[in-house]
Amino acid sequence: MPKFSRNQRISVITKYLIENPNKVINLNQFMNMFNAAKSTVSEDIVVVREVMQKMRLGNIETISGASGGIKYTYSISKEEIEDFSDKLSNILADKKRIVPGEFVYISDILFDPSIVHQAAVILATAFVKEDIDYVVTVETKGIPLAYEVAKLLGVNLIIVRRGNKVTEGPTVSINYVSGSSNRIQTMSLSKKSIEKNSNCVFIDDFMKAGGTAIGIIDLLKEFESQLIGIGVLIDNVKTNKKILQNYVSIVEFEGIGEDGNPIISKTIDKN
Amino acid sequence: MPKFSRNQRISVITKYLIENPNKVINLNQFMNMFNAAKSTVSEDIVVVREVMQKMRLGNIETISGASGGIKYTYSISKEEIEDFSDKLSNILADKKRIVPGEFVYISDILFDPSIVHQAAVILATAFVKEDIDYVVTVETKGIPLAYEVAKLLGVNLIIVRRGNKVTEGPTVSINYVSGSSNRIQTMSLSKKSIEKNSNCVFIDDFMKAGGTAIGIIDLLKEFESQLIGIGVLIDNVKTNKKILQNYVSIVEFEGIGEDGNPIISKTIDKN
Repeated sequence: MPKFSRNQRISVITKYLIENPNKVINLNQFMNMFNAAKSTVSEDIVVVREVMQKMRLGNIETISGASGGIKYTYSISKEEIEDFSDKLSNILADKKRIVPGEFVYISDILFDPSIVHQAAVILATAFVKEDIDYVVTVETKGIPLAYEVAKLLGVNLIIVRRGNKVTEGPTVSINYVSGSSNRIQTMSLSKKSIEKNSNCVFIDDFMKAGGTAIGIIDLLKEFESQLIGIGVLIDNVKTNKKILQNYVSIVEFEGIGEDGNPIISKTIDKN
Repeated sequence: MPKFSRNQRISVITKYLIENPNKVINLNQFMNMFNAAKSTVSEDIVVVREVMQKMRLGNIETISGASGGIKYTYSISKEEIEDFSDKLSNILADKKRIVPGEFVYISDILFDPSIVHQAAVILATAFVKEDIDYVVTVETKGIPLAYEVAKLLGVNLIIVRRGNKVTEGPTVSINYVSGSSNRIQTMSLSKKSIEKNSNCVFIDDFMKAGGTAIGIIDLLKEFESQLIGIGVLIDNVKTNKKILQNYVSIVEFEGIGEDGNPIISKTIDKN
């Protein structure tokens, strides 16, 4: 077993924590990895904790007890949230993005890992103090964002489908009214996918009237589970929300301006 | 500007590299972050590089020239690939997973970030030496895996849709024959989504006859782009492949055994 210097251990511990956010990691894991004493590993972790706090990159919490250990959670400063939201607003406020029907093309944003990761850190941070079992989304475009949030919260993702799929086994389906278009739509979820009595966060790319979120609440009720939070990348503030719960968003869409560009600005602190 | 110790700088540099795999990072970024000299930062990076190599966790390459810097790429040892493939085979070889129609339920695996991340490291490592512009997938279940591979390769994801969506603007659609069911299906992609002359890798959760992959090749041709690799989590080896190209997989599915359990084993080194 090769020996490791403190520098080396700190690098490896940092990597491991970053890759396993919001999960309790027993110190034994690191003691075995480095063939090192508990006191040595504890001192390494103090260094990582201090610099993460100093740079506002995250927190390392100590969980005591038999199944205890340490838990890394991301953090992000208000200034960084504002910088990111401003940057995103600028990228989106471009008339070239408008496609027939006055929709704004955003797939490039939603499928860019560096943007998705930063957005997910903001949304996950809003829910990190809650006891979350699953992150839920509806196919398709919001899946990468919802996946990143699930990863940062240390839980599994649930993807609600628009229709039945043969590979999912028995499913539960509900109908819901899309708030903005007033059409009846169906969403379904495999009976195998979720445990009873789960706490879920719904993550989506875009919120209009909130009909989809209401559908999710209804669907989760069928699984005796509850929605305890909603996070979206873009909130269409031109549409009246039918849902009254709190939700967090990163930027707000206010329609298309006289210059033909989408009007997009950072969400003012409801978060 | 607070001063940082070597230990602290190493922790922050490690975090940054892990979060930005396969991207060239200019040393100035770290010099500004820490208010440190180039020689100091270079020495920090040597420590990180050495321990990543020693532990087989990744490589740090130096790219010279004006736009040069360092680039971190994940690596994974043969033993780790085998361990993971064996573990995954065991999880999947469970008769409780079989749903009517003799399909194997795998959504829980595909939506578990810790499994998806490890699978993505294996698949991304197979293509990291190629010059990739996009990772492509078809909705829905393979999206988290494809997203993780895109992230690890430092490129954007492209999600091909099963039908036209109003928010995508003008799209290009093709019909393809699903190799296993012999049905004609449609896939479409927004004209905005991909630059001409791009090199793409196709990532999916499950490969049967390969009809979808052939569809992707045809669709990319419409964008004057090319598929240069295919990676799947599970390869159905009971079906004859219509495609002759190389592809990588992690585990192989050989049907359902006499005991009622799916027969799943690690892919023997075609990789």
